Amino acid sequence: MDGRDEPGQDDTVNAVTTAISPLAPLHVPDMPTIPGMRLATAAAGIRYAERTDVLLAIFEPGSTIAGVFTRSKCASAPVEWCQARLKAAKPRALVVNSGNANAFTGKSGRDACKFTAQIAARAIGCKPDDVFLASTGVIGEPLKAEVFDGVMEGMVARAQEGDFLSAARAIMTTDTFPKVATAVAKIGKATVTINGIAKGAGMIAPDMATMLSFIFTDAAISAPALQNLLKESVVDTFNAVTIDGDTSTSDTLLVFATGQTDAPRIARAADPRLKDFKKALLGVLANLSEQIARDGEGARKLVEIVVEGAVSKASARRIAMSIANSPLVKTAIAGEDANWGRVVMAVGKAGEPADRDKLSIWFGGIRVAHKGARDPGYDEATVSAAMKKPEISLKVALGLGKGHDRVLTCDLTKEYIAINGDYRS
Amino acid sequence: MDGRDEPGQDDTVNAVTTAISPLAPLHVPDMPTIPGMRLATAAAGIRYAERTDVLLAIFEPGSTIAGVFTRSKCASAPVEWCQARLKAAKPRALVVNSGNANAFTGKSGRDACKFTAQIAARAIGCKPDDVFLASTGVIGEPLKAEVFDGVMEGMVARAQEGDFLSAARAIMTTDTFPKVATAVAKIGKATVTINGIAKGAGMIAPDMATMLSFIFTDAAISAPALQNLLKESVVDTFNAVTIDGDTSTSDTLLVFATGQTDAPRIARAADPRLKDFKKALLGVLANLSEQIARDGEGARKLVEIVVEGAVSKASARRIAMSIANSPLVKTAIAGEDANWGRVVMAVGKAGEPADRDKLSIWFGGIRVAHKGARDPGYDEATVSAAMKKPEISLKVALGLGKGHDRVLTCDLTKEYIAINGDYRS
Repeated sequence: MDGRDEPGQDDTVNAVTTAISPLAPLHVPDMPTIPGMRLATAAAGIRYAERTDVLLAIFEPGSTIAGVFTRSKCASAPVEWCQARLKAAKPRALVVNSGNANAFTGKSGRDACKFTAQIAARAIGCKPDDVFLASTGVIGEPLKAEVFDGVMEGMVARAQEGDFLSAARAIMTTDTFPKVATAVAKIGKATVTINGIAKGAGMIAPDMATMLSFIFTDAAISAPALQNLLKESVVDTFNAVTIDGDTSTSDTLLVFATGQTDAPRIARAADPRLKDFKKALLGVLANLSEQIARDGEGARKLVEIVVEGAVSKASARRIAMSIANSPLVKTAIAGEDANWGRVVMAVGKAGEPADRDKLSIWFGGIRVAHKGARDPGYDEATVSAAMKKPEISLKVALGLGKGHDRVLTCDLTKEYIAINGDYRS
Repeated sequence: MDGRDEPGQDDTVNAVTTAISPLAPLHVPDMPTIPGMRLATAAAGIRYAERTDVLLAIFEPGSTIAGVFTRSKCASAPVEWCQARLKAAKPRALVVNSGNANAFTGKSGRDACKFTAQIAARAIGCKPDDVFLASTGVIGEPLKAEVFDGVMEGMVARAQEGDFLSAARAIMTTDTFPKVATAVAKIGKATVTINGIAKGAGMIAPDMATMLSFIFTDAAISAPALQNLLKESVVDTFNAVTIDGDTSTSDTLLVFATGQTDAPRIARAADPRLKDFKKALLGVLANLSEQIARDGEGARKLVEIVVEGAVSKASARRIAMSIANSPLVKTAIAGEDANWGRVVMAVGKAGEPADRDKLSIWFGGIRVAHKGARDPGYDEATVSAAMKKPEISLKVALGLGKGHDRVLTCDLTKEYIAINGDYRS
């Protein structure tokens, strides 16, 4: 398989067709520029031929940063690099590469991070500790950081206020389309912009659903406030998306705020002037995380799981995730079958309070099961028609309390197996 | 799909090829009789044509019973029936049907249990509370218990000391082969026999890995002692097998002890005279649970996951299960790729103590990763040859403590998707 976080397979490039996901958004937004930052991409030949694989973002002094990362106990070297520098950071640059995840690479991986940061710091004129890093691609192969030496000076020279779509392209691995989103928000009387890019595809699971996503804004927000906003905003966006229940070692979501704005500088996340910004940030994160579900490996259907009437939101989340990660539910949806028996199974195995005799289940808005049994009223043909659609909503009402939640996933198809299992044959 | 625990699909019978799993045991043991019990099967036409779908076992007075069940919060009506009667039971009969799981059937499901038990009790001459029940097949379709009325008298009339292979056949759904196992054990100077049958296939996950399994012995063991033995014995057998992480609503494992033996009667599980019996019981359960992994839906490889050096056995179990249930690990094995990067990912996402730089990984006995990096010494061709075998052992050493564990699973193939997703198309 081409360029996912796993051991190198030189024979795998182009082994899998990479037709654009049928669930890709029809409209790609025009991405405005963000004052205080510049972007450049380069083709360093890390793994892919004839495509860009390095992204450099340069930030003006005074920028702030926030970040959330994979909860994997075996995080990649770049994740550890960022985590160690996040709190005291004065971010000046972000270097991202695709093709090699620099994960499970031991000391050489840590050295590669250090070397990459040194190369970027020298080219930009900042400290290595002000350079943030992310890598995605093959696991366990040493990342030859010298390749950055060959392209960094050129990138710094040609960096300009943003071609975000090119930036999103440079970080793709098995993604079938680049993922960008943008929004504006009022802070005081000024308007600020929020741009985001992301890559996903497989190994997408709760507790950092994306592999890599980067958000950029010209708002002036202190690092602690930005961190709080981010933590709050990922709960129902990136953390509410699952493709296969697998969690990458490299998941990274960073937010950079350049502060190059007339808007007031905000110190605290609770500041009421952030109301509109919060909403816009949530919108960008929701948009990007939905795009990741739309580009799940082999996905043919976008699936929304809504759980209502649970004893708490946390309980609703666990039930929704149990449904979303059930291979039997996901294959049934791939088969366009409103198989509520498998949904009952997935509710039951979640280990959360649930009473079979109070359970109701809807597919595409049509109730198919009610209070402990098949709903005698539902029309098979109507349900069948609903299941043929590319976007399917599955709702479960537990009838126990007021806890509700929503997660996004996709179906499980033979294409997923082909992408993840056929690459050697 | 034909006859799994899910909503009825009349168009699905024979939609999937049912060639015998390539992992099926080559040798089927001769099953001895068990004094004190008789068996009969019948074709009641519950769902399948031209095959048996009802099993009746009749036990002499004085028999004891133990059982463990699914931990699903949405357990089937027969599971609830058995759980309610287990402690005070004087078991006289077991009625099992395939084709309809009597799950998520509400009040009608409870009525069907009651009616079935009444029919059996009348035919045998016992109390309905002494009749144990299990059902497997379609979920959510009412089970018409009248069908038992038509076959019960005949079954009682022709019941005889055991054709266990026919019994195992009558309870199959998507199983591709009947599962039986047998062992003998010394209690005092007498020899007792333990016979077991099981059915599995999909929806097999920890905390009751089988859908249905029944164990029969002529040993004389009190119900509380039998229950303790059973609980102890499932930990590393049925609870250490996972196919797809999905848990059935119907999982049931019952042990019946007829006591028709010259061996001493045993009251306590700690009785040292049970030593050999314990070992034999464990062997039968291990054999049957391995057969379930060998018959996982679409399975082409039997996969043993061994975890060593964890901080505790429980931690090792959770890491082993995280690996065993990872779609990315399972598809890699289907693709015959020793993809240790995905194993690192699965270790990392388990949430248990793990140190990347101490991690070593073996496929088929060959170390491919060592102390935080690719093992420079391993030979790709040797590993490739090992991965082509039908049985693969995957070992992870964490280097932290003395906790170790072992679970069994199978690979994830396109056949799994076909069995579970194509049945409508």
